[in-house]
Amino acid sequence: MYTMETMRQEIAAAVEKVRALKPLAPSITNTVTVNFVANAQLAAGGTAAMIYLPDEAEALAEAGSSFYINVGTLLPIYRETVPLAAQKLHALHKPWVLDPVAIGIGSLRTELLSLLKNYPPAVIRGNASEIIALAGLWNLSGGTETSNVHGVDSTDTVQAARLAAISLARFTGGAVAVSGTVDLITDGRQAVCSYGGSSLMESITGCGCSLGGVIAVYSAVASPFIAALCGTAAYNFAGREAERHAAGTGSFQLAFLDALYNASPKDISLTQFTPEEV
Amino acid sequence: MYTMETMRQEIAAAVEKVRALKPLAPSITNTVTVNFVANAQLAAGGTAAMIYLPDEAEALAEAGSSFYINVGTLLPIYRETVPLAAQKLHALHKPWVLDPVAIGIGSLRTELLSLLKNYPPAVIRGNASEIIALAGLWNLSGGTETSNVHGVDSTDTVQAARLAAISLARFTGGAVAVSGTVDLITDGRQAVCSYGGSSLMESITGCGCSLGGVIAVYSAVASPFIAALCGTAAYNFAGREAERHAAGTGSFQLAFLDALYNASPKDISLTQFTPEEV
Amino acid sequence: MYTMETMRQEIAAAVEKVRALKPLAPSITNTVTVNFVANAQLAAGGTAAMIYLPDEAEALAEAGSSFYINVGTLLPIYRETVPLAAQKLHALHKPWVLDPVAIGIGSLRTELLSLLKNYPPAVIRGNASEIIALAGLWNLSGGTETSNVHGVDSTDTVQAARLAAISLARFTGGAVAVSGTVDLITDGRQAVCSYGGSSLMESITGCGCSLGGVIAVYSAVASPFIAALCGTAAYNFAGREAERHAAGTGSFQLAFLDALYNASPKDISLTQFTPEEV
Repeated sequence: MYTMETMRQEIAAAVEKVRALKPLAPSITNTVTVNFVANAQLAAGGTAAMIYLPDEAEALAEAGSSFYINVGTLLPIYRETVPLAAQKLHALHKPWVLDPVAIGIGSLRTELLSLLKNYPPAVIRGNASEIIALAGLWNLSGGTETSNVHGVDSTDTVQAARLAAISLARFTGGAVAVSGTVDLITDGRQAVCSYGGSSLMESITGCGCSLGGVIAVYSAVASPFIAALCGTAAYNFAGREAERHAAGTGSFQLAFLDALYNASPKDISLTQFTPEEV
Repeated sequence: MYTMETMRQEIAAAVEKVRALKPLAPSITNTVTVNFVANAQLAAGGTAAMIYLPDEAEALAEAGSSFYINVGTLLPIYRETVPLAAQKLHALHKPWVLDPVAIGIGSLRTELLSLLKNYPPAVIRGNASEIIALAGLWNLSGGTETSNVHGVDSTDTVQAARLAAISLARFTGGAVAVSGTVDLITDGRQAVCSYGGSSLMESITGCGCSLGGVIAVYSAVASPFIAALCGTAAYNFAGREAERHAAGTGSFQLAFLDALYNASPKDISLTQFTPEEV
Repeated sequence: MYTMETMRQEIAAAVEKVRALKPLAPSITNTVTVNFVANAQLAAGGTAAMIYLPDEAEALAEAGSSFYINVGTLLPIYRETVPLAAQKLHALHKPWVLDPVAIGIGSLRTELLSLLKNYPPAVIRGNASEIIALAGLWNLSGGTETSNVHGVDSTDTVQAARLAAISLARFTGGAVAVSGTVDLITDGRQAVCSYGGSSLMESITGCGCSLGGVIAVYSAVASPFIAALCGTAAYNFAGREAERHAAGTGSFQLAFLDALYNASPKDISLTQFTPEEV
């Protein structure tokens, strides 16, 4: 169990370590936001590499310090690549982050997300509807059988996903980050709400996906809970900062990357978050 | 038949409705500009979701209010996905927008574009050469057998595509938007020329593709003709506005998204357009 | 053999010719940076078109003035597309640029890069580790059997890749550009070091990939050596210029495209470069 104070210390340490070590966090991710994911990982201080083919997934699971799997825009080859990557990461005990984007749409996504239950990720990041649907797919408390995911957007509130998040975290032994206006991060034993960000984050594509990639970077140097919290706090800091400089969604995206790149360990560790009951 | 005045009213209404309803307009689109398409759809007020797999196309054809098919960078799976999407949209009577990018290059593109004649789109958007080539492929007046498409760029003028645009619109019962220095929009019964924009729009990639995606968003709440005109007018407004703030193509792209995001119903409906004989 | 003075004249001429002729330089390239590649090619004055399918590669090899093959994020179809493109380009004697990104990772990349030895590119661009590994794969002096590529990043210095670059250039009869803090360009008979740029270029994704695409554009109007040098000098100019305007990695990317778009023949030809012994 972390105190608020040790959380802040661990976050600051994670930010510093990533900038010093530049850990490689390879990704299998969607084509829509892949550039943003890579640039966000670099802005946080990590190293990015994206792949599609099965044996490349294995090679990068070995080469990387952590890994990111985002099931956003599935291609046929993912049927082979995603299971192999997860198996390899599991065998190597490497932390990896799952973003169950658009869960419920299409048979391959359901097949892959079901199978990933066997190789639990260190961190699951999603919006409320995705977290609820994943808990449902994995037959855990708080989940529902049918997904409320509307395309790629959530129709549930973060608090509605609280039980699902806790049961997913308990099942994986890792952490879950539910993204929303106020974000919820839990490892199943404790939870915090993280504040900040900007409403403009929903008016550009990729804040969720790239947060998953950045959490993967932090997972290379911190516990799943601290990595999830650190990534979320960094995004809440950068979002708030970017909003001050933005004249619209184009300049917001630019200012967001600038803020993420310039964020100090203190900037991120001193963002507002509060303990939540579990 | 719309008067100039009712066109302006309908455009303003479409812009407002989209911002209020945030309609989902899923896309099958190319990997080069997919991020720009999504961000432009969001800036206009819509919701974006991109997919590659056949059953996901069907699921999103059902979930979405409209759809966008851009044949820019074809992948092997498109042989299954594109026909299924079009059939489903046709069966559901949902409006969808076709961008016949690079028509004439490769056998799969020709095969798919030929087949799409059976499931006519609500709006076709392309440059002059693409519109002429599509009319040719579909054996309609104004088309030519061989394409003058040079890579992805037009070698014909918008006025040269006038007859092709009209015959395509009459065939589909929808609308056609021909993009160029001055844009032509027609539903086969009436036509307008839309003015504005910026020469910088041809110096960045994706203005055409993302306009198709934005027209798909407007198609969710307006007739094909108004949607095509509204999207084109929004682009002409945003292009002109962005040019005033741009110091080059990088800052132009950013300023363009900002302007699209900030454009009011009045800004868009009061852009310059004039009636054209049909 | 060029003198420093004739190099500067040829560079200025290449920049001017590209802006006048807008040559089409189609690409097979990775999904991470494909948008940046296209926008950089446009900013330099060229025309871009990206494809995945075998017969489209052949069609664009014919339509284009040059070509760019970047093996960054391989897809299964590349097994057919890449060899066909290279064969066609070879048969047509068209200059093409190879970027051996991530050489050593995965069997398909190794298979394709081995095979490309039979259809030598006009220019090879890579970081030091990639150049050393490619020379190794092609059994040329200066290469090593095992790759030191870490994900997509170099772990070797540019000077360490000097012999490999020279032997690759002698083998292909073209040129090699080794990117690093100081860049090395050689055609096997002479070599120069090119200075400038910015450390921020490594903090965003795609400077290497898009440089390959821009060199392909210049290859349409200049010798491989001049094209490689011209592209590298343009990047060193734009990087230095952009750094002056950047408040972080987001604004750097924008300012970089602006600078590339605005760079005059003089700006690029007068960047600092010095002769190196071969």
